Amino acid sequence: MPQIEPKSRRDISEFGLIDRIRHRLQRSRRDVALGIGDDAALLRIPLRRELVATTDTLVAGVHFPRGTEAEALGWKALAVNLSDLAAMGAEPRWVLLALTLPKVDMRFVRAFMRGFGALAARHGVALVGGDTTRGPLAVGVTALGVVPAGSALRRTGARVGDDLYVSGTPGDAAAGLALIEGRLRAPARARRILVARLERPQPRIALGLALRGAATSCIDVSDGLAADLGHVLRAGGVGATLDLAALPRSEALALAQPDEAQRTKLQLAGGDDYELCFTAPASSAAPIARVAKRLKLRLTRIGTIERRRGLRLVGADGASVRLARTGYEHFAR
Amino acid sequence: MPQIEPKSRRDISEFGLIDRIRHRLQRSRRDVALGIGDDAALLRIPLRRELVATTDTLVAGVHFPRGTEAEALGWKALAVNLSDLAAMGAEPRWVLLALTLPKVDMRFVRAFMRGFGALAARHGVALVGGDTTRGPLAVGVTALGVVPAGSALRRTGARVGDDLYVSGTPGDAAAGLALIEGRLRAPARARRILVARLERPQPRIALGLALRGAATSCIDVSDGLAADLGHVLRAGGVGATLDLAALPRSEALALAQPDEAQRTKLQLAGGDDYELCFTAPASSAAPIARVAKRLKLRLTRIGTIERRRGLRLVGADGASVRLARTGYEHFAR
Repeated sequence: MPQIEPKSRRDISEFGLIDRIRHRLQRSRRDVALGIGDDAALLRIPLRRELVATTDTLVAGVHFPRGTEAEALGWKALAVNLSDLAAMGAEPRWVLLALTLPKVDMRFVRAFMRGFGALAARHGVALVGGDTTRGPLAVGVTALGVVPAGSALRRTGARVGDDLYVSGTPGDAAAGLALIEGRLRAPARARRILVARLERPQPRIALGLALRGAATSCIDVSDGLAADLGHVLRAGGVGATLDLAALPRSEALALAQPDEAQRTKLQLAGGDDYELCFTAPASSAAPIARVAKRLKLRLTRIGTIERRRGLRLVGADGASVRLARTGYEHFAR
Repeated sequence: MPQIEPKSRRDISEFGLIDRIRHRLQRSRRDVALGIGDDAALLRIPLRRELVATTDTLVAGVHFPRGTEAEALGWKALAVNLSDLAAMGAEPRWVLLALTLPKVDMRFVRAFMRGFGALAARHGVALVGGDTTRGPLAVGVTALGVVPAGSALRRTGARVGDDLYVSGTPGDAAAGLALIEGRLRAPARARRILVARLERPQPRIALGLALRGAATSCIDVSDGLAADLGHVLRAGGVGATLDLAALPRSEALALAQPDEAQRTKLQLAGGDDYELCFTAPASSAAPIARVAKRLKLRLTRIGTIERRRGLRLVGADGASVRLARTGYEHFAR
């Protein structure tokens, strides 16, 4: 057993890593009254805003392959948390980082911070708190944002008759993982695209902001479209029919997985997409189409919210299909 | 290598532990617009308040012995974070918990949550976000509080001529660790007291609140009094003389470590006390004495802030002493 040290002794004497690189990430936001370097950060919340807070931890060997490049890991650890803010329609502002490393490795940390910092800069997010500890590789991030009081998107709220949407092309990240693990093969360019979708997900912040007032419910797709949609349906006490033929497929995914059933499985059950799945009344269709155009982001209507609970899948031929472990199976209606 | 799973797949299918026990911890605070169960929490910040945010991770075998009882671990993981809020003079409100466990162990989780929940209840703190993941045992906590704008205590601010104070009896937690590790021995009652000081630190929230407007600087003693005081001195660009004879010693500590030099070393260099070390002008002496009486908490003047940088230690005989690895040594002035 390693020697037990008082909390944060090692953070200072061995690590203090974040201290050394914090200048790269301490963006000068006027709403940061006090950043890293004291016992806690002091942050200013504007009037009539609610604070939006979320935390997510990534553990090596569980949430990412152990060989994952540090820069990609830095990006992803922040991305999965910003994605939660996006799903709430929140504007991201500040993050706290808890980095656990087996040993002092400044090269790793610099690369990690490059990835983390690139995404933070893209969204104007300031790193305001950090904790570096020694231990098995893991990254914990807490993301804080703001939203006008009462206007956050939630999982609850889907109404019977609402259209069901998804952003982007789900399934790509799962295909990226399958490629890395050698379970799939694809031409170099398609592989690059799909692995980037796994390692560098784009939190749909701008979309979340645009959906406030337009969407009735929203969730980010981290566990797979079917599972996350299931949360929305249960939270709203409703059901849905999802049109498999409408599922937006990337060309790269089609190249990596030509088998339609297997591809549909990746799209429905594969996780790590960090797209948004949301519901909206028909009256929002035109505004949503304009949002898609403005953001240059595919927003696809993939189904309808219904009174009857549960998720029903309909294939291209209009027949019901059932999602199974090995793909999906047709079954009698 | 364990199989890689999409982020939070395992949280739901294997764990979902926090979901199962969250009712015990979701205190009904009116400032929680939305608690656990969505992509993020929605929190209401009162007018003219700043948000105070801190994060700290405890890793098994690094920050606590692997055999630490789950209930004590739950308490301590929250305590070290609330202590950071206390040092800022903040009122704690909400916490987010990231619990990484090697396997599903509901007994462990229930005990952990008992300890965590007991301290949360004591300070009226609501658990508003949680993430349970599979991996080597570690606990990450983010604590959020509020403070009237501009009135937070900081590390900076110590002024020449200020009195230097510490709360409680530092060194107890370090003695508790030495007892657990068999490096010290003590009668059963003293042992109980010292181990409790290690495992169940009391974040000095009420003291932090009372010190707003009275103290010029403040820090919590997590790394040892000398090291943490060093942060205050460097942040303020000042120095201090610390009177070793004034250091408040618990009876239990005197029983566990009769050797004065070794005891002083525990008091100065031992960590994990989570007391507050603060500075205040002489004009605050009477109010501080009243605070001590009201809170039934020892607040001891242990030195003076001086222009000359660095920390000087003065022994009972008035001679300068120097802190060394093996205790402390006298040296010529």
